[in-house]
Amino acid sequence: MAETEAQVRFGIIGCANIARKLARAINLAPNSVLHAVGSRSIEKAKRFITINGLDHQRVKIYGSYEQVVEDPSVDAVYMPLPTSLHVHWAVVAARNGKHVLVEKPTALDVDELDRLVGACESNGVQFMDGSMWLHHPRTGKMKEMLFDSKLLGDVNYIYSTSTTSPSPEFFEHDIRVKGNLDALGALGDLGWYCLGAVLWAKNYQLPTVVTALPDVAKNSDGVIISCSASIQYKEPSAAGATTNAIIHCSFLSDTSMDLALTGSGGSLNLGDFIIPHRESSASFEFTKGAKFVDLHIGWNVKPEKVVVNCELPQEALMVKEFARLVAGIRTSGLPPDRKWPEISRKTQMLVDAVKKSVDLGCEPVYL
Amino acid sequence: MAETEAQVRFGIIGCANIARKLARAINLAPNSVLHAVGSRSIEKAKRFITINGLDHQRVKIYGSYEQVVEDPSVDAVYMPLPTSLHVHWAVVAARNGKHVLVEKPTALDVDELDRLVGACESNGVQFMDGSMWLHHPRTGKMKEMLFDSKLLGDVNYIYSTSTTSPSPEFFEHDIRVKGNLDALGALGDLGWYCLGAVLWAKNYQLPTVVTALPDVAKNSDGVIISCSASIQYKEPSAAGATTNAIIHCSFLSDTSMDLALTGSGGSLNLGDFIIPHRESSASFEFTKGAKFVDLHIGWNVKPEKVVVNCELPQEALMVKEFARLVAGIRTSGLPPDRKWPEISRKTQMLVDAVKKSVDLGCEPVYL
Repeated sequence: MAETEAQVRFGIIGCANIARKLARAINLAPNSVLHAVGSRSIEKAKRFITINGLDHQRVKIYGSYEQVVEDPSVDAVYMPLPTSLHVHWAVVAARNGKHVLVEKPTALDVDELDRLVGACESNGVQFMDGSMWLHHPRTGKMKEMLFDSKLLGDVNYIYSTSTTSPSPEFFEHDIRVKGNLDALGALGDLGWYCLGAVLWAKNYQLPTVVTALPDVAKNSDGVIISCSASIQYKEPSAAGATTNAIIHCSFLSDTSMDLALTGSGGSLNLGDFIIPHRESSASFEFTKGAKFVDLHIGWNVKPEKVVVNCELPQEALMVKEFARLVAGIRTSGLPPDRKWPEISRKTQMLVDAVKKSVDLGCEPVYL
Repeated sequence: MAETEAQVRFGIIGCANIARKLARAINLAPNSVLHAVGSRSIEKAKRFITINGLDHQRVKIYGSYEQVVEDPSVDAVYMPLPTSLHVHWAVVAARNGKHVLVEKPTALDVDELDRLVGACESNGVQFMDGSMWLHHPRTGKMKEMLFDSKLLGDVNYIYSTSTTSPSPEFFEHDIRVKGNLDALGALGDLGWYCLGAVLWAKNYQLPTVVTALPDVAKNSDGVIISCSASIQYKEPSAAGATTNAIIHCSFLSDTSMDLALTGSGGSLNLGDFIIPHRESSASFEFTKGAKFVDLHIGWNVKPEKVVVNCELPQEALMVKEFARLVAGIRTSGLPPDRKWPEISRKTQMLVDAVKKSVDLGCEPVYL
């Protein structure tokens, strides 16, 4: 497709598997286009172009990350790098005036993230992390229902999982289990979503206390490969509810991504909240006022399936939203939207809190 | 229906709401019949007969529990009494040669239960608790799949909830929130099922350690109205898996009864494990080898719905199994089946362990 003036021109640095999904998304979003790909070797960058059916004539190919972030025709950089490299490259990109879309987990800890976000703010560029599910219309529909107290009542219990059972090679070689690359392991890679879902459901109110459960498992590198945590909101919400949440993330179980939002009067449940089973539409179950019929021999209601169609994949919607903000900055002189770095920061704070609780032998960590 | 010689004649002591369900079940099971009902007042017993459409000519009506347990024509007694009364009346019933079907939680602690079960054993009568879901054919089907390692792989994570949001009157008056009647509160009433499900899934292997989560809520009587716990099996199973479980039980959230059994290769999930939505058939979801399709834009499989038909309601199947064992004792001189008291005892042990952990401020309790 031809580039237009209004389109945000993306450079990707790093050719990780997830970059293939984003390359497609960038070209699917109407307001962005893939402009450059950089890898540590030009051969890897070329192979990326080929296997993704991209146009060698239209996408610049670079054999280093520097060249991408220094290319004046690149507006925004997407970074699917190991977490330990995020802060360095995001700061370099921001200083070069590039808007920054970074994979999750955003950083190794909130101090690093603050440097990263600080560089974006002082250079007037937009920051966003790659939590795609937040951009799915199903997520919006659930939020609408969540905050309608006539539907669920006071939401007082949230449960979220993110598990996957990778190949033995993953445990040998993947960056996500290497202490010197993605030291946050399953907590950063998968728990990020669960903790983000809790914050999302609580409208980004921070909890009072986070306590890791004793079921933590680590690999020989000391990296978390499975853990759970209890998240407590002791301060009642405006609706009067104190909320408790439990999250579970693991590289040891078959794929699951459950989210249950339970209130005094109803609940929302789904089993594919991070990546929907199918792109075109997604669903969740809604149950309201579930009681037993006379004699307790069944339920008065069954969960109702709510289906939400999706014209663009959620990752393309994410890119579209990011590009919309970038265009606003470029063409209308609007300031960067602080909502997205704030969401990332709070999520990173909870990741840090769970990690700290694990390190302290499951002591509660107050926020 | 006419009583036959082969039918086990049941007496019910106490006219709690749940007794209505069991009165129906006793008459639905082909090998049992409701023979007597006793309440502390004859008027309550009479009203019970009337509102349940029972035959005043065929069901004896007593104004005391004693008369039921002393009636020589009663073979077995069903006890929907407050937990604190179980041990007394079960021991009296056993000494009178009555077989004992008791509501859950079976006792206030395992020491009490041991006295109760001891009385049954020394009097040669059958004991069983009222965990109906264990008798549903869906439960059998799930167990069959659970122990087929080709389907789920090593089952290493179990999650179970039992929540219900009762009326304000419940919190004022119900025996389940009164410290002097059912001191175990939501843990005994609801957590019993969750803990029983963990044991069931582990083929009644006891865990290594139980730790209450800090999210416990109590009423002004000090009775638990909401709590969660982490259950750890540190000893690998025959299949090599160490298993972790999380349970959550609460009187504060809308009805839920989720059970997720997750292995390295697949999972079983259902949202109505304790009381199925409908009597005639019940289902669960089975997912095997869930991975993402290329580019991670969807799943390679969707959960498959497994439907199991049920000719008799699960509570009637429970009564039928109990009556079959009673008939074996009466007519063939078989010894009482020790499986059911063993299941109750292990469940009670876990209830006690969670309670102890709560009382110790969430310290781990080793079994």
